[in-house]
Amino acid sequence: MPELRKDPIVGRWVIISTDRAKRPTDFVREGVKLKGGFCPFCYGNENKTPPEIQAYRPNPNGGPPPQRDTPGWTVRVVPNKFPALGIEGNLSRQAEGMFDKMNGIGAHEVIVETPDHNASLATLPPKRIEDVLWTFRDRILDLKKDRRFKYILIFKNHGEAAGASLEHAHSQLIALPILPIYVVEELEGAKQYYIYKERCVFCDIIRQETETGTRVVAENEDFLTIAPYAPRFPFETWILPRRHESAFENSSSHMFENLAKALKALLTKADRVLDNPP
Amino acid sequence: MPELRKDPIVGRWVIISTDRAKRPTDFVREGVKLKGGFCPFCYGNENKTPPEIQAYRPNPNGGPPPQRDTPGWTVRVVPNKFPALGIEGNLSRQAEGMFDKMNGIGAHEVIVETPDHNASLATLPPKRIEDVLWTFRDRILDLKKDRRFKYILIFKNHGEAAGASLEHAHSQLIALPILPIYVVEELEGAKQYYIYKERCVFCDIIRQETETGTRVVAENEDFLTIAPYAPRFPFETWILPRRHESAFENSSSHMFENLAKALKALLTKADRVLDNPP
Repeated sequence: MPELRKDPIVGRWVIISTDRAKRPTDFVREGVKLKGGFCPFCYGNENKTPPEIQAYRPNPNGGPPPQRDTPGWTVRVVPNKFPALGIEGNLSRQAEGMFDKMNGIGAHEVIVETPDHNASLATLPPKRIEDVLWTFRDRILDLKKDRRFKYILIFKNHGEAAGASLEHAHSQLIALPILPIYVVEELEGAKQYYIYKERCVFCDIIRQETETGTRVVAENEDFLTIAPYAPRFPFETWILPRRHESAFENSSSHMFENLAKALKALLTKADRVLDNPP
Repeated sequence: MPELRKDPIVGRWVIISTDRAKRPTDFVREGVKLKGGFCPFCYGNENKTPPEIQAYRPNPNGGPPPQRDTPGWTVRVVPNKFPALGIEGNLSRQAEGMFDKMNGIGAHEVIVETPDHNASLATLPPKRIEDVLWTFRDRILDLKKDRRFKYILIFKNHGEAAGASLEHAHSQLIALPILPIYVVEELEGAKQYYIYKERCVFCDIIRQETETGTRVVAENEDFLTIAPYAPRFPFETWILPRRHESAFENSSSHMFENLAKALKALLTKADRVLDNPP
């Protein structure tokens, strides 16, 4: 029997329906083919991206400091060559008749997660995943200084079906002069819950999911990984900090270590269940 | 130069970015193949669907009334064989700890738009499209009598990429005991606009788009077809009634005639621009 479930944060009702998966289909989805050939994110092609914003370059034996835009990095951040927003200029809001617009100011960066073209975030050692998380933190702390921005979004499109255009493992960062509407809704929903219950909705979710255990995907000392009660998508998964925290970039090194482990555990499970999505 | 635009109804900011389309891709999307073979929506297979809810069966020469669940129909409505929600039972709301749920009561119907397996809504004559619209109206008027339902959603997934599982042209109807969150947000946004401006936001959009003309895709006496100012998706298009109306099912026959023409014009253009998406 299907059921309707309500997301406790924004109040969205979703249909949980298992029978739908049984329906037949006329369509045969052919696999996605890889073109192969040149990759701008591999060693030796550093001059094919815009100049790097930052990179981790281990230099264990000392010697002369490593050069920018050369091989030897483990994580590398570059401006997106085809940015959704432009970094230069001042914010300018204006009307277009009844409509409101703003010039497209923002940062759009690419975080190349590994020099290994065939690796994925799931297959990297936990320490390398941690480096990627520290890189996210570095970029957030830097971009937070820019008063034009109100929100920083970090996301990863894995595979063609998710919208990725390049195969080499990478995440993206977008700094925005506005708040995305779903963030406004989440903040507003969490505030309403707090006013009504005098408790944090995320802390309540963590408490209940830990007690019942039915939707727990993985857990460690600092993080709880769950299938949310009212997901929007199949396999939607949340990694929540056990302690009441509000800013990723203020996490302790202990938390980065455990978040890397939580991510690795989740992505490994997802790869296994979903048969290594390309 | 990219720009940020704000949707005037719900307040969602979107990025309008043309440069993104220029980026290269590693992935080659193979075409979708059709399996062919048996189709439950073709003439002669009426017994392979659940018993029909209604159908239009022209009977121009009189004679005995046509039989249910037999060929001869032009538009046919059947319950979805793999429904997302179940039609039987009373609403039962309950808590699951901090969460809220409801049993999955609802109607899920399939509107087979034509007996012709190779036709699409775009290629049907306007009169046949009108029949589909009248069918939507019939079903809405019938389901509105059911006090369990708060909202009726009619939608069409065209092609595998849109989520369709069967090739034969069809739409779907879902009657829900809740309001979808995006409808709540639209209603709330339109109300806020009305409180602030003392005018209907949709009427204002129609007035401005008609004056500037830059986003008008097509128009006729009763409907304006536009590319919205702040779309969520490429090729998102809205068909708006020129007169302030709030209920599709109360439209005049004149409006159904013109809505069929507006739909035909839009779908024909979309087919041409998008190279007949399968």
